[in-house]
Amino acid sequence: MAVIVALLLILYMSYRQIVRAYPQSGGAYVVSRENLGVNASLLAAAALMVDYVLNVAVGISAGIGALTSAVPSLHAYTLPLCLAVLALITLANLRGLQDAGRFFAVPTYLFVACLGAVLAIGIFKAIAAGGHPQPVVSPPHVPAATAAVTLWLLIRAFAAGCTAMTGVEAVSNGVDAFKPPVVKRAHLTLTAIVAILGVLLLGIAYLAPAYGIGAMDQSHEGYRSVPAQLTAAVIGQGAFFYVTVGSLLCVLSLSANSSFAGFPRLCRLVAQDGFLPRPFAMVGRRLVFSVGIWYLAVTAGALLVAFDGITDRLIPLFAVGAFLTFTLSQSGMVAHWLRGRRGKRGHRGSLAINAVGAVATGIATIVIIAAKFAEGAWITILVIPAVILLLKTIHRYYERLGEQLREAGPVDVHRGPPPLVMIATEGWNRLTDRALHVAMNWSPDVIAVHLTSLGGPDTDDDQKVLRRQWAKDVERPAKSAGFRAPKLVLLQAPFRRAHVPLLKLIEETQAEHPDRTIAVVIPEVVKQRWWQHLLHNHRAWRLRSALLRYCSDRVVVTTVPWHLEPPRVEEALEDEERRTAVRRA
Amino acid sequence: MAVIVALLLILYMSYRQIVRAYPQSGGAYVVSRENLGVNASLLAAAALMVDYVLNVAVGISAGIGALTSAVPSLHAYTLPLCLAVLALITLANLRGLQDAGRFFAVPTYLFVACLGAVLAIGIFKAIAAGGHPQPVVSPPHVPAATAAVTLWLLIRAFAAGCTAMTGVEAVSNGVDAFKPPVVKRAHLTLTAIVAILGVLLLGIAYLAPAYGIGAMDQSHEGYRSVPAQLTAAVIGQGAFFYVTVGSLLCVLSLSANSSFAGFPRLCRLVAQDGFLPRPFAMVGRRLVFSVGIWYLAVTAGALLVAFDGITDRLIPLFAVGAFLTFTLSQSGMVAHWLRGRRGKRGHRGSLAINAVGAVATGIATIVIIAAKFAEGAWITILVIPAVILLLKTIHRYYERLGEQLREAGPVDVHRGPPPLVMIATEGWNRLTDRALHVAMNWSPDVIAVHLTSLGGPDTDDDQKVLRRQWAKDVERPAKSAGFRAPKLVLLQAPFRRAHVPLLKLIEETQAEHPDRTIAVVIPEVVKQRWWQHLLHNHRAWRLRSALLRYCSDRVVVTTVPWHLEPPRVEEALEDEERRTAVRRA
Repeated sequence: MAVIVALLLILYMSYRQIVRAYPQSGGAYVVSRENLGVNASLLAAAALMVDYVLNVAVGISAGIGALTSAVPSLHAYTLPLCLAVLALITLANLRGLQDAGRFFAVPTYLFVACLGAVLAIGIFKAIAAGGHPQPVVSPPHVPAATAAVTLWLLIRAFAAGCTAMTGVEAVSNGVDAFKPPVVKRAHLTLTAIVAILGVLLLGIAYLAPAYGIGAMDQSHEGYRSVPAQLTAAVIGQGAFFYVTVGSLLCVLSLSANSSFAGFPRLCRLVAQDGFLPRPFAMVGRRLVFSVGIWYLAVTAGALLVAFDGITDRLIPLFAVGAFLTFTLSQSGMVAHWLRGRRGKRGHRGSLAINAVGAVATGIATIVIIAAKFAEGAWITILVIPAVILLLKTIHRYYERLGEQLREAGPVDVHRGPPPLVMIATEGWNRLTDRALHVAMNWSPDVIAVHLTSLGGPDTDDDQKVLRRQWAKDVERPAKSAGFRAPKLVLLQAPFRRAHVPLLKLIEETQAEHPDRTIAVVIPEVVKQRWWQHLLHNHRAWRLRSALLRYCSDRVVVTTVPWHLEPPRVEEALEDEERRTAVRRA
Repeated sequence: MAVIVALLLILYMSYRQIVRAYPQSGGAYVVSRENLGVNASLLAAAALMVDYVLNVAVGISAGIGALTSAVPSLHAYTLPLCLAVLALITLANLRGLQDAGRFFAVPTYLFVACLGAVLAIGIFKAIAAGGHPQPVVSPPHVPAATAAVTLWLLIRAFAAGCTAMTGVEAVSNGVDAFKPPVVKRAHLTLTAIVAILGVLLLGIAYLAPAYGIGAMDQSHEGYRSVPAQLTAAVIGQGAFFYVTVGSLLCVLSLSANSSFAGFPRLCRLVAQDGFLPRPFAMVGRRLVFSVGIWYLAVTAGALLVAFDGITDRLIPLFAVGAFLTFTLSQSGMVAHWLRGRRGKRGHRGSLAINAVGAVATGIATIVIIAAKFAEGAWITILVIPAVILLLKTIHRYYERLGEQLREAGPVDVHRGPPPLVMIATEGWNRLTDRALHVAMNWSPDVIAVHLTSLGGPDTDDDQKVLRRQWAKDVERPAKSAGFRAPKLVLLQAPFRRAHVPLLKLIEETQAEHPDRTIAVVIPEVVKQRWWQHLLHNHRAWRLRSALLRYCSDRVVVTTVPWHLEPPRVEEALEDEERRTAVRRA
């Protein structure tokens, strides 16, 4: 326990430095990128991303563990309760939880006050009883040997410490969210977190053995979490007990919620550097990065389901990631100070602090991996490189895209021949008339492609009828309006795959006219209501997709819309104004 | 039981008439449409559609009931087993089960042979024992009073009879699937079905009370279906028992499968008349009407889940629909004969047969509704009008669509001014160069709309840089190539809703130039692989949808594609050839 508190102190000192050096928003990813290069930053990003996901699962699971300690009849519903809390947090974040801080402040203060009181009373009683106080409610008998229990307690405390340290990382990642004076406020927050945490951890470390409290297996009925046992032992299971446990649930949910602030921010930074898909960098409707939130919710939910809501086994994984991150950001700071101006006051001190931090967290990382390798740390060793590989693959794709699209200097424009315009349709009516009008005013070379799904003996007769009608209804009026008459091509288009014969025709036409653009005009009935999608067969959509996908860059596709009801542009504009108003409110 | 056999005989005679009169494909929908008008045909269609869905659920549930009678340890898995059989049947039908008949023929013959043998042996034993035979395996004790048991048995037999009668309807609906001579073969099939069914029903009716067999509640452990009890009682639970039960499962699945043949065919007929969405009339990749199959599978699956795989309660609903259908097709035939030539030989006889059929089935319908009103028949009374209302609403939509799009006589084309072309983009690169080229060769009036997501203090500087670059890289080369220089408009496009400022600009432009078409050119990186959809933000797609939806018919949208890899049209064509080859094989 003392080791953990020492580590916490070292981290506290080091992160003070980081906050001062990177007041815009420093986190391990930025610190490593600036000071250690791309690979180190990707390592940090991967470790952090994994940890954020684990943090959500572990935090919610622990919170529900506290709840089921107080209300044992809910134990059977551990997983549904976990998922419900996850859904609640996700929803709050998707809607842009601006007052998250204020919303969660009450239970946090309450929890600190309650547990502080419990610890104070407990320590008083323990000292008064000479180290062997009589619990008000006896903790359940834990059959395991004391050594094993202590080890387990240590690991749990360690995990709690890690979560708290992630809180430290969250502060350094979100410095720009503080009100000015930024650095001072961030420092104050850091101090408060670390001080409270240290006191609480030390108090529990002293009282748990004194009252004979051990950690229990959460998957068994009758599970009681350590803080719940402690509170019951010190002050009994009265109203105060329930208040303490309730605030504990809130605080643990809050620790999960911190991932929902941190993960999308981290993803945005990584996406802006081109290592994650661009949608991660896009602000959603409510000024939050919804893609990141969704991604976090789904993966954390999958973890909860996979582990049935009991995530003790994830804690070693979590610790590896956390300490890897700490080591990287400390090392980054060491590099930062080494590179910086030597003469500045306090420079050597800062360097020393971060160097000690880097070495300490580095050793901690190695110790955890070695000690917990078989218990799950090996998974992290596999997952983190896989994530890095993915990030690099994504980056390579965007690089290739950028190379192909790079700004081209002066535009190469020249007057070319007009395009060959093809109108693809299944029948002739007012909708296709509009398409003909657009096409004939675009180019003198218009080919009307009539896709028929006819077949059998009547085809020849039908074709004759169509051609006669075409001559009368289109060719004659076109000529008298001074146009070159459009050509009619009849294509047999079987069933759903109407695009195949058209693709063939375009291929042949392109081979004949390699220098000309081909513009395919598709008339389309616009679906203005959702149920209209069920009533049409989406041929226009399928045709357009196939043309874009399979034809060359010289084939452009134009949609001529037809509206059944007059379109209402006001709707879209008003909708936007309402949204803006909501955002402002 | 005698009543049911009588009804069966009447139906048999009447359907012989229908097959003869409508050798192309009769069925209640067509017969009512031709003879009784649209409303009657919709009533028939609604009743039939509901019944087809119920038939799938009831058939599969009964089949699994037979299976769990033989293997009681499977009873707990009734619902999963039902859904598995449903999935199997659906898959087989989606893949175009051409040899369904042959595939199912073996178990059908086997079942008829087995149950025939069981009945023969049973009747022989019963007569030998003077009406009170000793069962080999005693049927489980059924606590209910004999009267109630007999009533329940009657209802079950009735339901079985209904299912069989739906088989009769299926024959008349699918006459065109027979080989010539069509009418003769269809008559033979009808005769065979009715004869076999009559014999089996009478046999069970005689033996069940003789052996003291009663119907049991399928939802209880230890459930045994009536045929399973009977077989066990007559010949014991040897290998023959399992063969009989196995073939029973197959036959009941086959009866569910008949819906998968009938429902999509019916839906196609109704969709061709414009009362169902058009996709129902579209042949899928494997020459089956996949939309209808999917719809049937999903609704039947929902019913099975809702009733936990035990569908006894659905049987009254089913009976109402079935007899309503029979009544309508009989009445239709009566109208058919009344309208037909009087003098023809056998005319009076046919009329009499169908009239008796219409009256008998009409009375049966009323009796069922009255007797089973509280037990579920009232649901049918609600659902069928709702379905009719839906069908009519769909038809009204298509009628309105048709009116708006009706063939327009000679095309009204005239040489108009060239369109105003707008290029919507977020940056300038080789992709937008191609769009510029297309736009400038289309019209002298090109407006390049640059959608920026910039904001804050740097905006003005950025805009100056953009305008300077535009002058150098676009305006100058355009002018020297003899074009009018395109105009640059910078629009602040916030976040995801880039379309809103563009919609506003188009609104204003249209107000200024009410006579001109506006063509919006959108450059788009084509996604050629599925994972590319994850890596792009789909702005082009969102923009295009919004423009088509909210702007007037005078705004057309052109997509200029950009391919990261050379597109491979061969892929699409080869794919098609492979499919065609598969279809032919």
